Amino acid sequence: MASIEMIVAARARLRGHARRTPLLSSPFLNEIARRHVFVKAECLQHSGSFKFRGGWSAVSGLDPTVRAKGVIAFSSGNHAQGVALAAKLHGIPSVIIMPSDAPALKIDNTRAFGAEVVLYDRANGDRDAIGARFSAERGLTLIRPFDEPLVIAGQGTTGLEIAEQAEEEGVKSAEVLVPCGGGGLTSGIALALEASAPGFTVRPCEPKDFDDTTRSLSSGRIERNAAMTGTICDAIMTPEPGMITFPILQRLAGAGIVVTDDEALRAMALAFKRLKIVVEPGGAVALAAALFHGEALESDTVIAVTSGGNVEADIFAAALEKYG
Amino acid sequence: MASIEMIVAARARLRGHARRTPLLSSPFLNEIARRHVFVKAECLQHSGSFKFRGGWSAVSGLDPTVRAKGVIAFSSGNHAQGVALAAKLHGIPSVIIMPSDAPALKIDNTRAFGAEVVLYDRANGDRDAIGARFSAERGLTLIRPFDEPLVIAGQGTTGLEIAEQAEEEGVKSAEVLVPCGGGGLTSGIALALEASAPGFTVRPCEPKDFDDTTRSLSSGRIERNAAMTGTICDAIMTPEPGMITFPILQRLAGAGIVVTDDEALRAMALAFKRLKIVVEPGGAVALAAALFHGEALESDTVIAVTSGGNVEADIFAAALEKYG
Repeated sequence: MASIEMIVAARARLRGHARRTPLLSSPFLNEIARRHVFVKAECLQHSGSFKFRGGWSAVSGLDPTVRAKGVIAFSSGNHAQGVALAAKLHGIPSVIIMPSDAPALKIDNTRAFGAEVVLYDRANGDRDAIGARFSAERGLTLIRPFDEPLVIAGQGTTGLEIAEQAEEEGVKSAEVLVPCGGGGLTSGIALALEASAPGFTVRPCEPKDFDDTTRSLSSGRIERNAAMTGTICDAIMTPEPGMITFPILQRLAGAGIVVTDDEALRAMALAFKRLKIVVEPGGAVALAAALFHGEALESDTVIAVTSGGNVEADIFAAALEKYG
Repeated sequence: MASIEMIVAARARLRGHARRTPLLSSPFLNEIARRHVFVKAECLQHSGSFKFRGGWSAVSGLDPTVRAKGVIAFSSGNHAQGVALAAKLHGIPSVIIMPSDAPALKIDNTRAFGAEVVLYDRANGDRDAIGARFSAERGLTLIRPFDEPLVIAGQGTTGLEIAEQAEEEGVKSAEVLVPCGGGGLTSGIALALEASAPGFTVRPCEPKDFDDTTRSLSSGRIERNAAMTGTICDAIMTPEPGMITFPILQRLAGAGIVVTDDEALRAMALAFKRLKIVVEPGGAVALAAALFHGEALESDTVIAVTSGGNVEADIFAAALEKYG
């Protein structure tokens, strides 16, 4: 099981490899939100998202003889890049199974990080069968995107940094808003804060119609999303919370917050203008919640994680044109 | 005179107020440059540029009774915002004299930081007369944009951080490429590196046709630019090197590097794609030099300062459309 001890161990393995991303703020954002808003800029992490933490944690945590054979992952993008880069920096091969409709930038980058990318048709392909074949033939180790303790531990290092950086800013209690797909980042941060900043509460943030975690937390059992397409927030379009992540969220997280695609685009434009960072739609939902869903928030201070910045230039330009 | 002792003192005054901006990198940028490229992301500084350091240093360095009366500055944008925000955070009034053709974002932000903005016509107005009248009437202290030891000392704190962060990365020697207008940032960094990282050489970077520092370093005397308009790099369009900054650069800086506006736009698009940061044209000239002017570089490792990110959404979107 994922635990604070595993997160602390992951931090030691990540030291000198992952980036301690900055905690940013702007008086203009405080004014919009009518509270103090800090932004944990994980879009500035290596590979352009927090996923590098989990990828590095998992790859570095493998037995060396197992690791040497290589790793395999399924991902529409950010996990792919995080694992591929971690594998490359460890000098081992990686195979990444990606849906053929994943953003071109994410496919290109995954290849550029040295991975063998295998595309499948999201509607008709059987990605599990493809993955099983590769794993069996080459002895690759599967790195799951979120329901994997080593991955959750890696993502949880973000939470240890948030606790340290919030203390440097004199923040004693806050809601920590986290973009939530399968819940690896959210549950990792929740575990880290439970141990190191007990005055902090994690709040999962999701796009409208893909609010499986919000509904699951509300009903007390795992709920699925109706569709697997239909939001620009591709990074956090998962079918349902994980078997490992959900119990952690049930125990530690506050209620979920749901934002619209348009609110995510507006948050991207404000992050551009006020923080000078590039955030992708799925990475912007927590900032959108901080800025536009004050009615759902309780604390004077919120810390929003901007979890990734791997967005195509045309989508970013469109967000600026509409809301810049 | 500006000195390392003043920079160290400025660092103490800036602690807890200015941000220690991250040193970023990307394997993709290394590949383009065919050398190691690090980016000191001063666009993530408060007020969106390094100018907050100099503004804070100058305002905090004033005698309290003098400071209480307020400050005044001339600026087309980034110095304006840096001084206005530093004044606001000190609880004192500021008057900023800006040309009426300065970017609207910069004028708006300066006002939003609480400054009284006075616009003048760059072609026919006499900004010095306007400034003198305000200063005399209200007892305001003028904060010069670069030819002022307290300001140079503040900008120089960037150099102390570069030395520390380069050491953390195991870098022993490098060329440090700095966008250069009047030379406050470049000379401040040069002084800091002379004392704390003697294997490092500062290289001023300028836009084509506004290469007064490059030409002045080459001829050994202060040379002026022919025009005061005609580049998108508005942040570093100064008529000539400063009386205080130039002798420092003559003693410590390597040759200047000149880039085109198009190269600056390409660097902006690559900073978007590979580093997830927003850089304005004038702030991107050093990164452009790192990426596209290898012929002018000598070291295996370069550190490019991206000095500001205060760019209008439409200019940024145009850069992405052209080069994204």
